[in-house]
Amino acid sequence: MRVESFFSKTTRTALKNEPPGEWIAELPDDCIRLSSGYPAPELVPDELLKEAVIRLFEEERDLPLHYMGSPRVPKLREQIQERLACRGVYVLGEELLITSGACQAIDLIARTFIDAESVVALESPTYMEALEIFQNYTKDFMSIPVDEQGLETNLFEEALVDRKQKGLPLPKLLYVIPSFQNPTGTSLSLERRRHVLELASQYNFLIVEDDAYGELGFNEAPTSLKALDKEDRVLHVGSLSKVIAPGMRIGWVAGVSKWIKALAWFKKDLDHPFAQAVMASFLENTDYEKRLKSLRESYQSKCSALTSAIEEHFPEAVSWYVPEGGYFTWVKVPGVDTAKLLEKALIKGVSFVPGKYFFLNQADGMEYLRLSFSYANEEEIVEGIRKLGRVIKSELKNI
Amino acid sequence: MRVESFFSKTTRTALKNEPPGEWIAELPDDCIRLSSGYPAPELVPDELLKEAVIRLFEEERDLPLHYMGSPRVPKLREQIQERLACRGVYVLGEELLITSGACQAIDLIARTFIDAESVVALESPTYMEALEIFQNYTKDFMSIPVDEQGLETNLFEEALVDRKQKGLPLPKLLYVIPSFQNPTGTSLSLERRRHVLELASQYNFLIVEDDAYGELGFNEAPTSLKALDKEDRVLHVGSLSKVIAPGMRIGWVAGVSKWIKALAWFKKDLDHPFAQAVMASFLENTDYEKRLKSLRESYQSKCSALTSAIEEHFPEAVSWYVPEGGYFTWVKVPGVDTAKLLEKALIKGVSFVPGKYFFLNQADGMEYLRLSFSYANEEEIVEGIRKLGRVIKSELKNI
Repeated sequence: MRVESFFSKTTRTALKNEPPGEWIAELPDDCIRLSSGYPAPELVPDELLKEAVIRLFEEERDLPLHYMGSPRVPKLREQIQERLACRGVYVLGEELLITSGACQAIDLIARTFIDAESVVALESPTYMEALEIFQNYTKDFMSIPVDEQGLETNLFEEALVDRKQKGLPLPKLLYVIPSFQNPTGTSLSLERRRHVLELASQYNFLIVEDDAYGELGFNEAPTSLKALDKEDRVLHVGSLSKVIAPGMRIGWVAGVSKWIKALAWFKKDLDHPFAQAVMASFLENTDYEKRLKSLRESYQSKCSALTSAIEEHFPEAVSWYVPEGGYFTWVKVPGVDTAKLLEKALIKGVSFVPGKYFFLNQADGMEYLRLSFSYANEEEIVEGIRKLGRVIKSELKNI
Repeated sequence: MRVESFFSKTTRTALKNEPPGEWIAELPDDCIRLSSGYPAPELVPDELLKEAVIRLFEEERDLPLHYMGSPRVPKLREQIQERLACRGVYVLGEELLITSGACQAIDLIARTFIDAESVVALESPTYMEALEIFQNYTKDFMSIPVDEQGLETNLFEEALVDRKQKGLPLPKLLYVIPSFQNPTGTSLSLERRRHVLELASQYNFLIVEDDAYGELGFNEAPTSLKALDKEDRVLHVGSLSKVIAPGMRIGWVAGVSKWIKALAWFKKDLDHPFAQAVMASFLENTDYEKRLKSLRESYQSKCSALTSAIEEHFPEAVSWYVPEGGYFTWVKVPGVDTAKLLEKALIKGVSFVPGKYFFLNQADGMEYLRLSFSYANEEEIVEGIRKLGRVIKSELKNI
């Protein structure tokens, strides 16, 4: 019996994309992880979450352990509605779906809107998981370059005009991470935000706004695309992974109620009452603004440590973006294959993510790499950059 | 902008199935719930789960709160492998995928194997959620009746022979709940288990064995289909919802590694490290066999209360199956529309699930209803059956 013969056609097509393996080999224990897009361990509120669980059980007993019944599950929705209101996004209950993190939201959106013939527009580079998700549904993409102000909307417009003139299909949706993007750390300027909304209106596509890092600006939070959206074209995807903890798997998507209803219909995992009730219990005992302020200060300090170290230790040929928030910076090492560079860096005890994994066409990303300042402590960050600087210099000498 | 115009074709097709509303209106607070397929509140180990969380945090700190890193996440896999071995199912790590409950497993299977043209064979009646899930992917079904020994495999064989002769497409997979089925409470006899495996071999289809209730037999556990499967055709779906707690959302699917790998590829929710680590922490401190023994005794006692009360209070015209495990019994009220009966029952303060919701063709289920003995306590069960008996007698008088 040939096991693959049972797969559906869409499965067989999707599985052709499967990358040959994980992007990174197992890291040695003492490796300085400038690759991890994880929150800093000391900033993950494990003590407070433990207390939240204790409180939850004391008050609710078995209620959060059933399929339904905990009053904190609807409470979480209200709490998220409040957080969205702080981002200028006002949604009714039926316009909000709680998901297992942003990834599930993106996958549900792809499943609900994308046909095999649909065109998906996205930033180049973009979030690795989203690339994998969308490629499970379609092969037709428009890849739009990113610069220090985010998605290059002028190039996007040119590409749309070009497609229209040639009678080529126009995109069904644009997937964009406009605030402190993963992997580049850039943010879409206000002018470009307005521009992309105009393009969505003119060319009739949806916008999936991935706002996972939106609350992590060092200064003012950028205005959400959804807050500027007058035509209900934006599906706003958010997550508590970066501001509370990823392991709890709490995310959401907010948008037009008919779309939210369809997404909910396909979700089929009977939700996560326990995890959601725990999160609600945590949030009701948390001064959220105070927490954000503290996170921003910590991450800004770590980011400064990173950029100062880069300025000191990286050779002149290397360029990078200065982040204004989020978790990452994006570095270009001209003429160097950063995947090969990684092998050398690992030997010296520092990791990063080679840029190619963030591109649809990996060849476009060979010279780039993503550095994370979120996870390692400041001492490790400085030491890691020192090591990486030496590796880069050595590599550049060999070119 | 017409919002539905953005849906993919498969979405538009699937949404045509959407039921007009929930199968049941909100239940009054004092309603005796013979409808709830929930574990008994007193059997849900909230105290022990709370302790498990405390222990987890004390030992692991922030580890279970990250995307990866808790040693208890792989530990859970091993614990489930052990449980499967007790069911006679031996799987390697790569042949097991942990999911958010059995529902997510079923949906992943449907997504991975079912084309729009695929035929799915299933019991009639069957699990309501599975009906909804499969209908999102195909419109082509073979509905096989169920009697007191489960799926009627002779009728299944006749239908397969007939299809083959007529050149009609044969099923891609059979979805079956062979042990203490939801909704009928019946179990597939050993002879029929062998028969269905022979049919799978002869007609080359997969079997999705939903074993959610498999460990809840009052006496000996029935032999799992997967344990009898010599051709690796069975995908074994399981769940800890009924034996521990549904709110934790821990389920799995076990099968050929290439299939498991494909299912994992499409899962796209980055797993549930926290919930999984909590469950592993709970299980390592639990004498599982002792817990099962205690559950079986409790549920058997509740079931006896139910069947004794039925014998006493239901009129002779009514027939039902005597459960040997699980959560449910299946009742036939000849000539009565049980959905209308429900309205009257609710006024009297007792609920059940009208049978039609468990059938692809709802007209087939008008005279049936599902009673659950799992949730209400014995006193409530007896009182609920007394009330329902009066309502049924009154209804039969009016026919």
